[in-house]
Amino acid sequence: MKHKIIFLPDEEIIFSKHNDNILSVANSHGINIASTCGGEGTCGKCKVIIKSGKYNFKSSHFISQKEKEQGYVLACKTDIIDDLIIEIPAESRIEKISALKDEFFTPAESIEKSPSRPEEKIFTFSPISQKIFLKIDKPTLFDNIADWERITRCIYNKKPELINSHLNISLDLLKKLSKLLRDSNWEVTVTLTENNNLWEIIDIQVNNTAKNNFGIAIDIGTTTVVTFLVNLNTGEILNSKATHNQQMSFGDDVITRIMYSEKREGLEKLNSAICNTINELISALTLDEKISKDDITSASIAGNTTMIHLFLDIPPNFIRREPYIPVVNFPPNIKAKDIKLNINPEAPVFCLSGVASYVGGDITAGVLACGMDNFSTISVLIDLGTNGEIVLGNKEWLLTSACSAGPAFEGVGIKYGIRAMDGAIQKIEIHNNILNYTTIGDKKPKGICGSGLIDIIAELFKNGIIDKAGKFVKEKTNRIRKNENDEYEFLIVEKNKTQINQDIVITESDILNLIHSKGAVFLGLKVLLEHAGLNFDNISHIYVAGGFGTYLDIEKAIIIGLLPDIPRDRFSFIGNSSITGAKMCLISKQAREKVKTIAQKMTYIELSTEPKFMNEYTSTLFLPHTDINLFPSVKKYY
Amino acid sequence: MKHKIIFLPDEEIIFSKHNDNILSVANSHGINIASTCGGEGTCGKCKVIIKSGKYNFKSSHFISQKEKEQGYVLACKTDIIDDLIIEIPAESRIEKISALKDEFFTPAESIEKSPSRPEEKIFTFSPISQKIFLKIDKPTLFDNIADWERITRCIYNKKPELINSHLNISLDLLKKLSKLLRDSNWEVTVTLTENNNLWEIIDIQVNNTAKNNFGIAIDIGTTTVVTFLVNLNTGEILNSKATHNQQMSFGDDVITRIMYSEKREGLEKLNSAICNTINELISALTLDEKISKDDITSASIAGNTTMIHLFLDIPPNFIRREPYIPVVNFPPNIKAKDIKLNINPEAPVFCLSGVASYVGGDITAGVLACGMDNFSTISVLIDLGTNGEIVLGNKEWLLTSACSAGPAFEGVGIKYGIRAMDGAIQKIEIHNNILNYTTIGDKKPKGICGSGLIDIIAELFKNGIIDKAGKFVKEKTNRIRKNENDEYEFLIVEKNKTQINQDIVITESDILNLIHSKGAVFLGLKVLLEHAGLNFDNISHIYVAGGFGTYLDIEKAIIIGLLPDIPRDRFSFIGNSSITGAKMCLISKQAREKVKTIAQKMTYIELSTEPKFMNEYTSTLFLPHTDINLFPSVKKYY
Repeated sequence: MKHKIIFLPDEEIIFSKHNDNILSVANSHGINIASTCGGEGTCGKCKVIIKSGKYNFKSSHFISQKEKEQGYVLACKTDIIDDLIIEIPAESRIEKISALKDEFFTPAESIEKSPSRPEEKIFTFSPISQKIFLKIDKPTLFDNIADWERITRCIYNKKPELINSHLNISLDLLKKLSKLLRDSNWEVTVTLTENNNLWEIIDIQVNNTAKNNFGIAIDIGTTTVVTFLVNLNTGEILNSKATHNQQMSFGDDVITRIMYSEKREGLEKLNSAICNTINELISALTLDEKISKDDITSASIAGNTTMIHLFLDIPPNFIRREPYIPVVNFPPNIKAKDIKLNINPEAPVFCLSGVASYVGGDITAGVLACGMDNFSTISVLIDLGTNGEIVLGNKEWLLTSACSAGPAFEGVGIKYGIRAMDGAIQKIEIHNNILNYTTIGDKKPKGICGSGLIDIIAELFKNGIIDKAGKFVKEKTNRIRKNENDEYEFLIVEKNKTQINQDIVITESDILNLIHSKGAVFLGLKVLLEHAGLNFDNISHIYVAGGFGTYLDIEKAIIIGLLPDIPRDRFSFIGNSSITGAKMCLISKQAREKVKTIAQKMTYIELSTEPKFMNEYTSTLFLPHTDINLFPSVKKYY
Repeated sequence: MKHKIIFLPDEEIIFSKHNDNILSVANSHGINIASTCGGEGTCGKCKVIIKSGKYNFKSSHFISQKEKEQGYVLACKTDIIDDLIIEIPAESRIEKISALKDEFFTPAESIEKSPSRPEEKIFTFSPISQKIFLKIDKPTLFDNIADWERITRCIYNKKPELINSHLNISLDLLKKLSKLLRDSNWEVTVTLTENNNLWEIIDIQVNNTAKNNFGIAIDIGTTTVVTFLVNLNTGEILNSKATHNQQMSFGDDVITRIMYSEKREGLEKLNSAICNTINELISALTLDEKISKDDITSASIAGNTTMIHLFLDIPPNFIRREPYIPVVNFPPNIKAKDIKLNINPEAPVFCLSGVASYVGGDITAGVLACGMDNFSTISVLIDLGTNGEIVLGNKEWLLTSACSAGPAFEGVGIKYGIRAMDGAIQKIEIHNNILNYTTIGDKKPKGICGSGLIDIIAELFKNGIIDKAGKFVKEKTNRIRKNENDEYEFLIVEKNKTQINQDIVITESDILNLIHSKGAVFLGLKVLLEHAGLNFDNISHIYVAGGFGTYLDIEKAIIIGLLPDIPRDRFSFIGNSSITGAKMCLISKQAREKVKTIAQKMTYIELSTEPKFMNEYTSTLFLPHTDINLFPSVKKYY
């Protein structure tokens, strides 16, 4: 027996079997409903409203009585026994792919403001793949070398620097070669790629198509996937797009994902989810720029170790089990066709090297982007992604660790948290009980992104609206109220001023969640410094990375105890350094080599085996810290 | 409507459609009927006898009146309109795969007797693929590198000479890696291959399987395919097998094959035919030696340029058209799985480099095998295959050309010609009208191979039974008689002494065919020498190669004018140097590099554009030559 299901507001129609689960059936038809627990009923994100028809459901504490009366259910706990009309409310929709402005990700000026980079000049323009137009001498009785050797001779003439390199071609292309050369009257464009001084021709096109050569840089985050479409003739970013990682439906952190991968067909589903996410971004980019996917001739990919495993369809099982072993940190050379990546099938795919199970290619990308491995002074990179990774060191040595900060600063697990996108509240100030905010793109607000979350905690704390434990001081303002779950919340924007027609608030559990995150990051840095026999004063510079949008208020990050209380001119906010590093590798051979050297140079420190980390953790769960002497400049707010 | 067809003597039953052609339908069911014209009705090789049933046929001058009465037809000119019982007579059967003794192909002693080989020592044992057993340290919290880097570290420890090489692995293997390592309790055998200093792991087996590592060397001849199964731990040849190239059904020379390849599905059929031929040989070898095909971890292949194109499924169209351009002379790195070769799918396949459309990797293999590119004195290599190629030169330079000798010395186009195999007459002497012969393996004769054909012509000429034009002097012996086609023939063995129950004879047209072949070879050498400003006296050594079996009588080859009349100690018969060279490449990196250098060093001389070649050709169509002064030692037989 089949049932007809209509999903509102898009009026998408699907047919399901009797007793199918709403969340599963929606996901399998490409209708995305938010979920971060993988359908376990523990995240409460997949609320939908049944408008008509009968259904079997389990009740949940995430559904209030009032909601229940309106037809709200958790999609993951509701089975279909009738034709249904189902509304997916705004808060349960997974956002569509959004275009992102270049400067959201590459605040080049802040990198330039950072300490001098002696080796900067080494990053010459040498993309993974290049196209060359060839006018080839036609064969004669007196010049009768074979087609393949004729084409290589022409390439060596045009690019004498390759003369000592071996040049290869796939058998498939060789089969087409004689026809291609003669059909084109010996004028063809070849696409060349290089790998360990082995060059390969991956495509041959008739006539001069050299101007159509593009690459894709990809940052695979646990939460967010960001792509840059790059012109490989100039290095220019033509367009960029980002969206949520579709794997979010299977869990919101890497451990949950790994556990899901161990279920039957789990790895297959996770792999499809990330490949779909990326391929949809690529489709959107190629549509916008009116280019052919076959003209995307290389890809460069940064991601944490688990994400890279899932993307390459490699079982990540042992990452989560002591002694925490990935299958691979230095992924081998692969081609797009090997991994369902919808670009030129022969395109090389470069995955940036990782360091350990919890420090991946996204972090080596960050080191590459900020250049801290070139300085004689001590620098720190803090990447506030889903995991929270820290790198400490100089040109001699690099230590790194991950501090399980969770995805709070990416907006995940926060009631109105969203990632940096148009309409995200990114800046908040409270003066005399008056709250001012600004949003990205100056759009009506639809949620709060990481920088806005840091601001609101700092402002609430500065104004005495929360105490140092993060609890509301109820009498301070009438913006504090109890919600239907009997939890205190603070009103940030009233619903009539929002895009989502709901009050945007921050709840007490949101605040605790953020305090846990900031505490883990700060303690990670402190323990790593102590491991190296250093203290905060030894740090010459701190690079703060993360997908915060255009803005991060360092002062406020110090007030909440996320960043250490050292002189403000020692900080640079460098945005999404993972995508910046991936893009550098896409266009420079020296960057590709450098990132391997960086990964080899980095020593991973496992925080879970450092007794200090566990002992001191509770000390960090205060604003800014139990030991206020660590934050002298914040004392005034006590 | 389907018809049931029974083929005798093997009683193989197939079902055909109405009006199907007997030859096509037999070939498509793997029942091999001889044919060298590709079904055009011009070779007369595909005679079959219809024992019962009705059929439509075209008459042919190849079928005598007597044969017609017995039910003989040409399979290619007969269509099926009824259930049939068809006998394939012995002479129309394509021989089965035969085992060959090692010494048939590698008369190592004759190579050793040849001039000193200064660079011989450079060929160290370094097979294309090797297996190494690894006991890998298990991961701990304090040694937590990834599985892939752990395995590479162990390899570098075991083989420090690789430390500066890049090590690669396929994504497919990487996906299985974590399970393999843990299932084997960290004791695995890896198969490593090298290519341009890039090493790759192509297989990982549980426990110690290092002793099971084999390679296959293949000589793809236009007529005959020869394979060696080699133990890659020792270099020893374990077994060898040879058979006719199944492409023989589509034409007996490269030009006919190329023309066939241009028909619809022609290339596909030719490619399948050669792949089937090789795969059947491999099946027979692995069955004999009781080894797994997956343990054949590399292949090395020598063949003429057209054969390599057809084997790789590359269109050879332009090889036969002025200016005679192959697609490739230096084939790229390929894997067994890319080309339907039934060995380990990831096994690297090394194709020896060729020089031009009519001088292929079989000839560079020959130069490698005899080592003539190392000597300061002038040497010559003559390969009497289907094409007849010559190389002239020393360590400074190498000239080469092909002389379209045809496959007569391989027994093709000769009524009772067969290739060197058990039962082949390889040696013939006539004294006082008494004929003595010996066969390979001392079996009852079933035909005459190349060395026997040279002997019979020389003996007939010495004894005055044929004149210098190759015509029978009828009154000389009662062994000369007229056959049913009204042609004179000479009786060599009476049918009651043969395996085939037929008189083995040589006909006048056989003799003319052989004279044309020997003339083309001799003239090719003469023109090449003149091109280099040299004459026969300048030659220090001549290496004669070809699939003649264990024996070639140089003296008799000179008497018939095939080889020049220079001192006999300047000749070495080196057997099948193509398979020897292929085997050397299978087991030595230096050989693989050397063969590329040899191919680059060789200059191809197109004889068809040398006016001398066409002008002097008729002068060579005599025994030994029109100008008897070129053969002073043969004068006595005049």
